Amino acid sequence: MTQYCALHPLDQATSLESLGDDRYRGRFPPSYFNMVGPFGGVIASTLLNAVLSHPKRHGDPVSMTINFAGPVDDTDYEILARPARTNRSTQHWTVELIQHGQPAITGTVFLAIRRDSWEGSDIQMPEVPEPAKVEVLDTTGYRPWMNNYEFRVVDGHFHPDGSAPAQRDSHSTLWMRDEPPRPLDFLSLMALSDCFFPRIFIRQQQRALVGTVSMTTYFHGDAESLRQQGSRPLLGVARAQRYFRGYFDQVGELWGEHGELLASTHQIVYFKSEGF
Amino acid sequence: MTQYCALHPLDQATSLESLGDDRYRGRFPPSYFNMVGPFGGVIASTLLNAVLSHPKRHGDPVSMTINFAGPVDDTDYEILARPARTNRSTQHWTVELIQHGQPAITGTVFLAIRRDSWEGSDIQMPEVPEPAKVEVLDTTGYRPWMNNYEFRVVDGHFHPDGSAPAQRDSHSTLWMRDEPPRPLDFLSLMALSDCFFPRIFIRQQQRALVGTVSMTTYFHGDAESLRQQGSRPLLGVARAQRYFRGYFDQVGELWGEHGELLASTHQIVYFKSEGF
Repeated sequence: MTQYCALHPLDQATSLESLGDDRYRGRFPPSYFNMVGPFGGVIASTLLNAVLSHPKRHGDPVSMTINFAGPVDDTDYEILARPARTNRSTQHWTVELIQHGQPAITGTVFLAIRRDSWEGSDIQMPEVPEPAKVEVLDTTGYRPWMNNYEFRVVDGHFHPDGSAPAQRDSHSTLWMRDEPPRPLDFLSLMALSDCFFPRIFIRQQQRALVGTVSMTTYFHGDAESLRQQGSRPLLGVARAQRYFRGYFDQVGELWGEHGELLASTHQIVYFKSEGF
Repeated sequence: MTQYCALHPLDQATSLESLGDDRYRGRFPPSYFNMVGPFGGVIASTLLNAVLSHPKRHGDPVSMTINFAGPVDDTDYEILARPARTNRSTQHWTVELIQHGQPAITGTVFLAIRRDSWEGSDIQMPEVPEPAKVEVLDTTGYRPWMNNYEFRVVDGHFHPDGSAPAQRDSHSTLWMRDEPPRPLDFLSLMALSDCFFPRIFIRQQQRALVGTVSMTTYFHGDAESLRQQGSRPLLGVARAQRYFRGYFDQVGELWGEHGELLASTHQIVYFKSEGF
């Protein structure tokens, strides 16, 4: 009997060949593509992978910022991941993805060796029906990357057929996980933090031309918190704050199934909306 | 009669000597110092100033991320500000502050030439008493940098004398402006976005050892929005979300006096709290 041991699609998409000297090479598969390039979450996850697989890595991720400076396509790219400063229990990285001779992505990653401390929360996970009681979103006809996720939208749906009126705000709550299921780690959590529909789609209930220009994710759990979550769905909550002269922001939280805030995320997004 | 035309303290603190080739030199004045180094907001503002005074600048700030990688003192530093990619209406920068031969600060700045678009808000400014009706915080005995600001705390005070019990959450609302008053621009708004007391001070009502490791600010107004605000106070709102194994986050908004969201800001902060 032959046993197949296939990599999860996310691990395939974020895999890198080390070239030494802080350099890596890779290529994004069509299965994680969005409208005109790879899904931003998988780009972020791949840059994080470069840091986490680097021989000089010192600690686990606490924050990451990624800037989408130019288009990325399905040909080879190179990543440059350099430790800018290493302290006793922290490490700051700068990362860059270069394609066709130009920086297409820039970013920074902060790692730390966490130590025990007083712990607390100022906010609580919203009370929502458990995942099994919420319908799975049919992603047929959506962009390819969405088929690598399972979404169960609790509220703040997007109806691409135009059947819903514009909303008063863009607040959404949804259960989300990798599809097929994959045990949560920093790579999948980074990608999941970019999984929300663009907020203007929810607010206006119609598609618009959008592109994230900068995204920051803070990790509020450690490797053990993520291990405990396993492959069960996370509860994602997202909303915008302001849409002004071509840019809007998105604020989001990702909760473990048992009410532990595992990540918070923010992004600023370019938009061009013809309809309003 | 002699007329004095003195630079505002913020302009003195953020002033730079251009060395050409994307390089600048400066030094932080003691008047903007915090506990062991300069106030993070004035460091951010200075790095932003390097970008905004660069001959290759193309657009106005939409987002900035700054990482505090190592200590900064009151001796000379050098800033390296490089345009990573310039597009038709956007520009991505990487910035670094080097002192004693090591990168102490890293960051990225995103500029854009904004165009008119549909505009909207998903949130509203909280209803609070007007600035004149709120007592000015007496900053005598506080860190030097605080004397460059006027704070009028509406709620979520910090009582350093230990006279208040620990709070259920760290939510604060306060009016804030430069002192002496200074017309708002991107430099002062960037610095103001780091003006909140560390959230753990509010939550626990006692000081703790804290240090911001990464901060991101999104600008939701343009130069004209800032000009209209003039030197009047902004309403700042801040809260934490989670405190976990040595790090907590802070989420904040800065509102113009007439209810326009001018900036949103996020940071992740190292803390060591002995008391709990």
